[in-house]
Amino acid sequence: MPAMTTTKKVAAVFGAGPGLGAAVARRFAREGYTVALLARGEAGLREVQASITRDGGSAAVYPADAGDAGSVSAAFSKVRAELGAPEVLVYNAGAFQMGGILELDPAAFESAWRANCLGGFLSAREVLPAMLEGGRGTLLFTGATASLRGGARFAGLAVGKFGLRALAQSLAREFGPRGIHVAHIVIDGQIDTARVRGMMPGREASTMLAPDAIAESYWQLHQQHPSAWTQELDLRPAPEKF
Amino acid sequence: MPAMTTTKKVAAVFGAGPGLGAAVARRFAREGYTVALLARGEAGLREVQASITRDGGSAAVYPADAGDAGSVSAAFSKVRAELGAPEVLVYNAGAFQMGGILELDPAAFESAWRANCLGGFLSAREVLPAMLEGGRGTLLFTGATASLRGGARFAGLAVGKFGLRALAQSLAREFGPRGIHVAHIVIDGQIDTARVRGMMPGREASTMLAPDAIAESYWQLHQQHPSAWTQELDLRPAPEKF
Amino acid sequence: MPAMTTTKKVAAVFGAGPGLGAAVARRFAREGYTVALLARGEAGLREVQASITRDGGSAAVYPADAGDAGSVSAAFSKVRAELGAPEVLVYNAGAFQMGGILELDPAAFESAWRANCLGGFLSAREVLPAMLEGGRGTLLFTGATASLRGGARFAGLAVGKFGLRALAQSLAREFGPRGIHVAHIVIDGQIDTARVRGMMPGREASTMLAPDAIAESYWQLHQQHPSAWTQELDLRPAPEKF
Amino acid sequence: MPAMTTTKKVAAVFGAGPGLGAAVARRFAREGYTVALLARGEAGLREVQASITRDGGSAAVYPADAGDAGSVSAAFSKVRAELGAPEVLVYNAGAFQMGGILELDPAAFESAWRANCLGGFLSAREVLPAMLEGGRGTLLFTGATASLRGGARFAGLAVGKFGLRALAQSLAREFGPRGIHVAHIVIDGQIDTARVRGMMPGREASTMLAPDAIAESYWQLHQQHPSAWTQELDLRPAPEKF
Repeated sequence: MPAMTTTKKVAAVFGAGPGLGAAVARRFAREGYTVALLARGEAGLREVQASITRDGGSAAVYPADAGDAGSVSAAFSKVRAELGAPEVLVYNAGAFQMGGILELDPAAFESAWRANCLGGFLSAREVLPAMLEGGRGTLLFTGATASLRGGARFAGLAVGKFGLRALAQSLAREFGPRGIHVAHIVIDGQIDTARVRGMMPGREASTMLAPDAIAESYWQLHQQHPSAWTQELDLRPAPEKF
Repeated sequence: MPAMTTTKKVAAVFGAGPGLGAAVARRFAREGYTVALLARGEAGLREVQASITRDGGSAAVYPADAGDAGSVSAAFSKVRAELGAPEVLVYNAGAFQMGGILELDPAAFESAWRANCLGGFLSAREVLPAMLEGGRGTLLFTGATASLRGGARFAGLAVGKFGLRALAQSLAREFGPRGIHVAHIVIDGQIDTARVRGMMPGREASTMLAPDAIAESYWQLHQQHPSAWTQELDLRPAPEKF
Repeated sequence: MPAMTTTKKVAAVFGAGPGLGAAVARRFAREGYTVALLARGEAGLREVQASITRDGGSAAVYPADAGDAGSVSAAFSKVRAELGAPEVLVYNAGAFQMGGILELDPAAFESAWRANCLGGFLSAREVLPAMLEGGRGTLLFTGATASLRGGARFAGLAVGKFGLRALAQSLAREFGPRGIHVAHIVIDGQIDTARVRGMMPGREASTMLAPDAIAESYWQLHQQHPSAWTQELDLRPAPEKF
Repeated sequence: MPAMTTTKKVAAVFGAGPGLGAAVARRFAREGYTVALLARGEAGLREVQASITRDGGSAAVYPADAGDAGSVSAAFSKVRAELGAPEVLVYNAGAFQMGGILELDPAAFESAWRANCLGGFLSAREVLPAMLEGGRGTLLFTGATASLRGGARFAGLAVGKFGLRALAQSLAREFGPRGIHVAHIVIDGQIDTARVRGMMPGREASTMLAPDAIAESYWQLHQQHPSAWTQELDLRPAPEKF
């Protein structure tokens, strides 16, 4: 689709299944970006793609395993060939591993780290070369409460989320002066998704983060002028304890 | 001016002299807010008011000393009587006291704290009652590199800026659940103002924060949906070391 | 007492009333230091002095108001004249001001800041000149949970404690390279004192910080070799949530 | 050696080669602990063992790869069988991977994380069961400047060190209430080792951390009373910028 690559900007969203990833993808699609949707589950991506297309936007689906170097590399090669080089990367993939230190399985602990952190490194490496050539680009990393606090029974998540934050800082310090905006967003609270509503049917919407509201801040980060870039911000619902 | 109080929203900017305060005031005026301009120097406020009026906006001038309880209280009484209760407070007042611990004058050290921190407390108390009654409002506090780091020879600034950050957190935790959005913005770098350009004539604009770019983020903070509020973010120029 | 000034090292403890201040004073007295006991209430200081003397140690009493520049200056002049220049300063004074932002009295808010923060600045200025002349000295500042977190209804404490932390950092960065060890200790939990036991009779001792255990860490900080100084550490009881 | 297991306490030091690991091992050996020395290189461990034995201490050598679950598990099984269950674990293993994000090899990036972080998880799991049974134990984790700051070209180190800090926090929060003291030590500066002196022959000793001075703080952490435990402290040379 060479016509597409020359006429439309591309945003890649890793972890683009239903929920926050989908909302961010829709937000960028609404601004005219073609969105590359990446995640492990193809079915979820198809759903998001359909909703974007329905609204007149443009998106393509790239099933990929964030923790697998070969899979990440193959997916981004395809994105570049089919859509063009992304100007925006949103890294929103993750895996949740709750449990005490003695209960966690070492293989699962490592696999969670790969999804929560390594995939961010692998994905950044895929999009940076073209961004550096163009002298611009935006990398947005989704953090969590566990990015700043290693809670009891949360090591399986926190180890990767702390690492992702370190990665985002290193990227910002290395590539900010070369025109790449790198930001880390600490989502502090429960995101309001169909899955969460299923688990907690009585929970009031006002106590959860609306995916579209989060996506708006992602978009605004991308819109910031290079003279006043944010490297880190937190997002939480008004009633959240913190 | 009762007509005005019922028809226009009011934003109060403390520390509204030329530079960041002026830019934030202009940004809110552009959205239709009547802006109450507060600062010690009336001349500077008049200049900002004139520029807002020139652009078709509306602003009024309230000379006040941020560190003086009586002066702050009198100024806000006048704001409420003349413009109506502010829906937004931007606390941007401050005083810079550089010098080693043994060189600083205790009276000046305390007076810097009053401008950098106490005035934020006094101002918040003035605007909160009406905000709580209406169940909405935004308080934005201007921080600095010195909000997070007590540098050598920077105690005179850092003691107040750390304190202001503590205040912003306490406000957010107390009033967030009641509908008041409280955010603290860490400005990490040199703001591009006429005064700074006078002192450093050769400095490249791209290494400084543009006041209008900062003001845009202040505005966006005010626009955030309560389900995804930011309590703290940093802003710095792309090439800034941090 | 010229003989005393030449033969014994001096430690000054501000906020030396019963509780942590007393325990730190006792710990240094046990190592042979003459301890200058400073606080507002003379009766409490006399009690601490008596307990130190009973154990064969040496201490003198200097009633002073930490938040008053003249009082602090007069007290330290007397300490220097009577005991000699302190080699150690422990700043442990403080005032607790709990309450919502709209309930706090501005005058009391400011007075709490003076005790929690300004007094640390004033005291450091008194002991630093002689320390710099000798090329050595230790300044220890007592922090709290509120040094790192501005909780709802805790602004009256947090504003001063954040400020004290800023001060300790500035002091460390300015004077560390000149041989002065500056450390800030975050006490995260309830200290086990007679007063607290009176208020919470049923509370288990193991859930509170023992003053002597804290004092041991203060002493160890003073013992650290300049090649591996601690600037900040936290202390909390084993069962404490954090 | 059942006699040994009943008569001497055991400390395990992972990353016990020449430098900090050796100094910590010697410090605990001096207090009568039998020290299990773990690291990849057997030759380095033998050297440390010889120096401990020379001083009348007791140590045994267990070559192991911190990033390999099987290797870690086998080594600790041997430690338990031969020396008894460790009462102290010092996790000091690590790998340094400097370089820009685009220069780092993904396999090496992951392998650095295994040494810097995963090994801490694997080792903690080995020693915790016996500690919990006895209701006491100490876990000490060696951090670095890169534990708190993701610098440009330091992602290869920071991702693991941030993760190790998350792990230490999770461990502290899960096991502190059960009697296990978990502390994370941020070493902020250059440690004075033979290797570093070889690389920077002119560097003044006073600008580096003496391994024995660091080891003293590790020992003091282990000595802290459970009513006033430190979870985190920093250590740096007096002249270090920070």
